[in-house]
Amino acid sequence: MGNPLTGRRPGLVVLGSTGSIGRQTMDVVRSLPRRFNVIGLAAGGNVTLLEEQAREFRPRFVYCDREADYLHGRVAARWAAMEEMASHADTDLVVVATVGAAGLGPTLAALSAGKTVALANKEVLVIAGRLLTAEAKRHKAELRPIDSEHSAIWQCLWGESPHSVERIILTASGGPFRDTLPEELERVTAEQALRHPNWQMGHKITVDSATLLNKGLECIEARWLFDVPLDRIDVILHRESIVHSLVEFRDGSVKAQLGVPDMRLPIQCALSYPERVPGTGIPRLDLKRIGTLSFGTPDMKRYPCLSLALEAGRRGGTFPAVLCAADEVAIQHFLAGHLRFTDISRVIEDALAAHSGTTDPSLDDILAAGASARAWSEDWIKAKT
Amino acid sequence: MGNPLTGRRPGLVVLGSTGSIGRQTMDVVRSLPRRFNVIGLAAGGNVTLLEEQAREFRPRFVYCDREADYLHGRVAARWAAMEEMASHADTDLVVVATVGAAGLGPTLAALSAGKTVALANKEVLVIAGRLLTAEAKRHKAELRPIDSEHSAIWQCLWGESPHSVERIILTASGGPFRDTLPEELERVTAEQALRHPNWQMGHKITVDSATLLNKGLECIEARWLFDVPLDRIDVILHRESIVHSLVEFRDGSVKAQLGVPDMRLPIQCALSYPERVPGTGIPRLDLKRIGTLSFGTPDMKRYPCLSLALEAGRRGGTFPAVLCAADEVAIQHFLAGHLRFTDISRVIEDALAAHSGTTDPSLDDILAAGASARAWSEDWIKAKT
Repeated sequence: MGNPLTGRRPGLVVLGSTGSIGRQTMDVVRSLPRRFNVIGLAAGGNVTLLEEQAREFRPRFVYCDREADYLHGRVAARWAAMEEMASHADTDLVVVATVGAAGLGPTLAALSAGKTVALANKEVLVIAGRLLTAEAKRHKAELRPIDSEHSAIWQCLWGESPHSVERIILTASGGPFRDTLPEELERVTAEQALRHPNWQMGHKITVDSATLLNKGLECIEARWLFDVPLDRIDVILHRESIVHSLVEFRDGSVKAQLGVPDMRLPIQCALSYPERVPGTGIPRLDLKRIGTLSFGTPDMKRYPCLSLALEAGRRGGTFPAVLCAADEVAIQHFLAGHLRFTDISRVIEDALAAHSGTTDPSLDDILAAGASARAWSEDWIKAKT
Repeated sequence: MGNPLTGRRPGLVVLGSTGSIGRQTMDVVRSLPRRFNVIGLAAGGNVTLLEEQAREFRPRFVYCDREADYLHGRVAARWAAMEEMASHADTDLVVVATVGAAGLGPTLAALSAGKTVALANKEVLVIAGRLLTAEAKRHKAELRPIDSEHSAIWQCLWGESPHSVERIILTASGGPFRDTLPEELERVTAEQALRHPNWQMGHKITVDSATLLNKGLECIEARWLFDVPLDRIDVILHRESIVHSLVEFRDGSVKAQLGVPDMRLPIQCALSYPERVPGTGIPRLDLKRIGTLSFGTPDMKRYPCLSLALEAGRRGGTFPAVLCAADEVAIQHFLAGHLRFTDISRVIEDALAAHSGTTDPSLDDILAAGASARAWSEDWIKAKT
């Protein structure tokens, strides 16, 4: 990435700029004036915010799912598909902060064009990690994590040989129901599930954090990002969300990355790498004040979604796509009040059991498996409710 | 350092091979067979162990302070001064595990000859850090830490730019008297002071850990090793000695190195860098079992030696040499039962107050200031007891 003082400013595309990670990405870009040249912004439904962002950051391209026409007259930017802006000649860095499978095409387009991709949309790697990492390798494109856990691991690996890694240890806060009795989980509401103790995040990921399915997805994501097999990736409960993750090396030494739970820190890290720039507005960690950090073993009975995700990851092929699709559908219905919290794992378990799987699937196989699991899960829910 | 499989084995010299760090260094060398070519071993008084080590590791040179003649006929090695073996053409790596000012000459000789020095003898850097680091720079010699705290910082800095460092945070266990009432400290015995809760170490450093003077020395050591001013080096209490130290970066990210309290880990790290080799016999860290890590602020009233050391470090010049000399004398007399535990800080405080100091001192100035502070402290003790 060019130095903003001596060279051309890196061209930045932010896909999903109006979501939680997208908005925080724009905060970071705002706090580092004259560092980036914002080439493109892409949003889902929030056209009002996209318009505001377009007026502030003056991108060349904008994309939105709906009401594209509406924006046309109101900002100077031209409408473009996410794939187009992600692979444009002036683009250097693409932040993929979309949700679900939507980021897959643009991520592939960016990697095929040799762009650096900062990835917050973990489903993309979960369902198509083998394809994406192969594509990145082929085109010498760099994949940087934005998830706080993976950013922690990435930072711990700077200056280390990949052969030195013994084990990756992902920390999990345990979510809002870590102290809820298992028998009470049947009755918890969407509102309760959305009250994460440590992090402010989007709805889907907050529910995924309550089931710990998110941690399973993170294990699969780590498997692809760092080329470490799943059986050498461990999950440890850490209530305070201060230690964002750890790496154990072959010699027994362990490195950890710590910080206040604020996504702007890993976002900025992915954007400014290899430089570390002073974070404006990001609070500093004060361990003396925090006092205690605690660690424990996650109770697999309390978190069946974690086991299901790990199992889907181990089976590979199209299974992770089925996992993500069934989870997406189940969470939609849980948030709408159609499904109990504990039914989320049941939908996923049955969807995985009903899937026959394909080894070494193509992108089309993966997308087809996802679509069919989505329909299957809708039917499951319709039948049960 | 050469790869043991493809090139010439690195030539290793261990100064202080019969002390606590020296013996553990030989354990590490033993656990990595055919990796090093032991060129020289140097010991203080323990000739019996030196002879054993010489028979096992077959060095070309041995050195001992006393009874040098005795060894001559009994091992194949030739007697040589520490400076000679440390700067020998076949030597690549010199472990300096001597105690006090004894390591200064050989460390300078090694650095002037461009050798890599793995330093456990922190007093050497404390009293002559400016000279040693300048000498290392002049001859492109590398200084690697062996102290667990400094090894932690070093590991956290791999792959980072020195400009990224905001703050170094050294952890301190608090030693055996962290829960002792201040008014009881007058009466604690040498035996109690030698009972460190977490680490098995030599006598001097164990008492220095009880007074926390050791932590002050470590701050000064860190100042020179990592070129970070003292006012950006912080001390945090951490009872468990699992987090060996931390680095805070400019962006607010914090990295820590963790491990079981076992000196073989940092020793091996310094010896095998940049490779991480599987540690044989070093237990693995199990955070799930440990459960809790605690952090707090050291009580400066309980630990006057820490303030004194930091003050000596800030004043610089010959003050750190006076600090170390007065401390050495005071600890000798405390261990012999001539002095109360709380008198250690009084000797040091008065010795520092009596010293007028020299800015930018030569090695001779430093050694002279140490010798004169030693005599001054002996007189102080004679007068008071």
